[in-house]
Amino acid sequence: MTRPVNFSPGPAIVAPEVLEQAASALMGVPEVQGLSVVEISHRLPWFEGVVAETRDRLRRLMGIPDTHAILFLQGGARGQFAQVPLNWLRPGTVGAYIDTGVWSKAAIDEARTLGEVQVIASGESEGYRRLPALEGVALPERTAYVHTTSNNTIYGTQWPELPDFGAVPHVVDISSDILARPIDVSRFALLYAGAQKNAGVSGVTIAIIDKAWMAAAREDIPAIWQYRVQDAHDSMFNTPPTFAIYVTLCVCRWLEELGGVAAMAARNEDKARIVYAAIDGSDGFYRGVVTEPRHRSRMNATFRLPSEALEKTFVAEAEAAGLHHLKGHRKAGGIRASLYNALPVEGAERLAEFMRDFKARH
Amino acid sequence: MTRPVNFSPGPAIVAPEVLEQAASALMGVPEVQGLSVVEISHRLPWFEGVVAETRDRLRRLMGIPDTHAILFLQGGARGQFAQVPLNWLRPGTVGAYIDTGVWSKAAIDEARTLGEVQVIASGESEGYRRLPALEGVALPERTAYVHTTSNNTIYGTQWPELPDFGAVPHVVDISSDILARPIDVSRFALLYAGAQKNAGVSGVTIAIIDKAWMAAAREDIPAIWQYRVQDAHDSMFNTPPTFAIYVTLCVCRWLEELGGVAAMAARNEDKARIVYAAIDGSDGFYRGVVTEPRHRSRMNATFRLPSEALEKTFVAEAEAAGLHHLKGHRKAGGIRASLYNALPVEGAERLAEFMRDFKARH
Repeated sequence: MTRPVNFSPGPAIVAPEVLEQAASALMGVPEVQGLSVVEISHRLPWFEGVVAETRDRLRRLMGIPDTHAILFLQGGARGQFAQVPLNWLRPGTVGAYIDTGVWSKAAIDEARTLGEVQVIASGESEGYRRLPALEGVALPERTAYVHTTSNNTIYGTQWPELPDFGAVPHVVDISSDILARPIDVSRFALLYAGAQKNAGVSGVTIAIIDKAWMAAAREDIPAIWQYRVQDAHDSMFNTPPTFAIYVTLCVCRWLEELGGVAAMAARNEDKARIVYAAIDGSDGFYRGVVTEPRHRSRMNATFRLPSEALEKTFVAEAEAAGLHHLKGHRKAGGIRASLYNALPVEGAERLAEFMRDFKARH
Repeated sequence: MTRPVNFSPGPAIVAPEVLEQAASALMGVPEVQGLSVVEISHRLPWFEGVVAETRDRLRRLMGIPDTHAILFLQGGARGQFAQVPLNWLRPGTVGAYIDTGVWSKAAIDEARTLGEVQVIASGESEGYRRLPALEGVALPERTAYVHTTSNNTIYGTQWPELPDFGAVPHVVDISSDILARPIDVSRFALLYAGAQKNAGVSGVTIAIIDKAWMAAAREDIPAIWQYRVQDAHDSMFNTPPTFAIYVTLCVCRWLEELGGVAAMAARNEDKARIVYAAIDGSDGFYRGVVTEPRHRSRMNATFRLPSEALEKTFVAEAEAAGLHHLKGHRKAGGIRASLYNALPVEGAERLAEFMRDFKARH
């Protein structure tokens, strides 16, 4: 019996070392009388230490400068879709959005309930199978911020380099590639991510925010939705999702032991190369969904087979071979292999081997 | 070495059986190829079953009628402090609030950022040491809803019976006594609770909402903050806090095995009687914070000692005796013993014994 490989799009694979540490703390933490990490106050010095260490490690791992604060919030990326315009989209200003698929569109829809939005570039007419060209794109006057989605899990596109808008505040949803490749944090006003793909489990949202921009946000909105309030309270304005934060700490420890983000990015490149080579070397049996090779995601490799019937067979036989959760999102169809940080290179190799074998048999 | 007793005010004690089930699912769930509960999609039928079973058990445990929906949200009670007025406090209407302490006040402050608020009764002038009288209190014309806090963790008061406002929508924060005593759910428009005291771990918020009232809420606000949207998506509009929901399921199973809410309420009465008897039988050495005995909380027993120095000694000696996290909230001072569902009667007995012994020695 081979070990199962978990290609889940999210909540996604977690490293066994992380699960073991988390389960151990769930059963009891020696530093707090053997009580569980989930049954103690977030105000205890030990738990404040957990939050501080998680923040310190993220700062080191991502090279986050002192100009930026690190917050642990709730509500996931969808919460941020609303919280960002609530804080900065004042009357008379415009939120400029780049539309690269389902999640970008959801961010746009939320912002429209709160203010004026302009979609400055969209991949919709090309079925989101490539990223839109940005040459010649002009930002509206009085742009409050630009919003970009770094990696698009459903269609399988990813910005090879994040766009640059100079001094205009740039907000990026990095939910699906946080900690998976280096980012020059100093360039961005706000980076946010739900933790459940590369940074832990669902229930905690990481926000990395330029302090000056944070200070310029609205103050006449509910305190719970003000980044500055959470920052002033060290992310403990309300009871934080303590277990989810603890798991993020375990992920950071694991990542640093493996060599950090650069080492992880190299490993992610390896995995993506292996899977895309299996697609491209199949004489057209497998067809990549993304039309521009430079826009192919390192996190989610999407491809089709000659027929939907074969795709069903592919998923079923893959499951039988221990390769799980490869079915594509219903909006894109086909196959999606999610290759997040915790997926070992061996997982990608087993998938590529299965793909060659499946092609030979069908 | 005696076993530690956990009087943490929250996140609070979790039953060992619940922790064991949760740790087991964290290490691997047989029904999903042995993968961890945290590394699978919330869209898998197995996890949809977890959500459905949690809902069904809550419905049974709390006697929730079909007129009410059960939602699993994020953001805790503080999130609800903002979400409630955002949904229902339209211009021209008034949010009527009963102020019984720090958490009520925080709810009032959030509502004031969104609309017109009237405090219809307040315990502030009496230091929140009793609940305000409601006789003769008139609701403002055009009251959108009344908001009450069921149990006040900091001062240690609890409504022996929740107030009745007839047909006016009544919203109650039951964060600290959900599942701890019977409630006639049909009387309320919305009951909400962070799970981390009696219903699980921090990171999930339970909302029990009258469907007709839900349908009457604003639709021109961000989708993520609309109860109806979460209801239409079975609480999966965004990725839910899967682990926290799973723990709530384990808590519900544990509760039903122990006989349900009525059995738990009886046990909670026992624990409270034991601790308050130790206070009242101390010839004034221990003084209860709450001035009206009928308003004493069954969840958080608060009391003072003859001096702050003695209170410090009390906390330190209690820790040494294995009785943990008894220090009162900084706003109330003194001692607070939190007696939530998962605290066994033996925990209250050990505290009472320690109190008698401490008094004899000091």
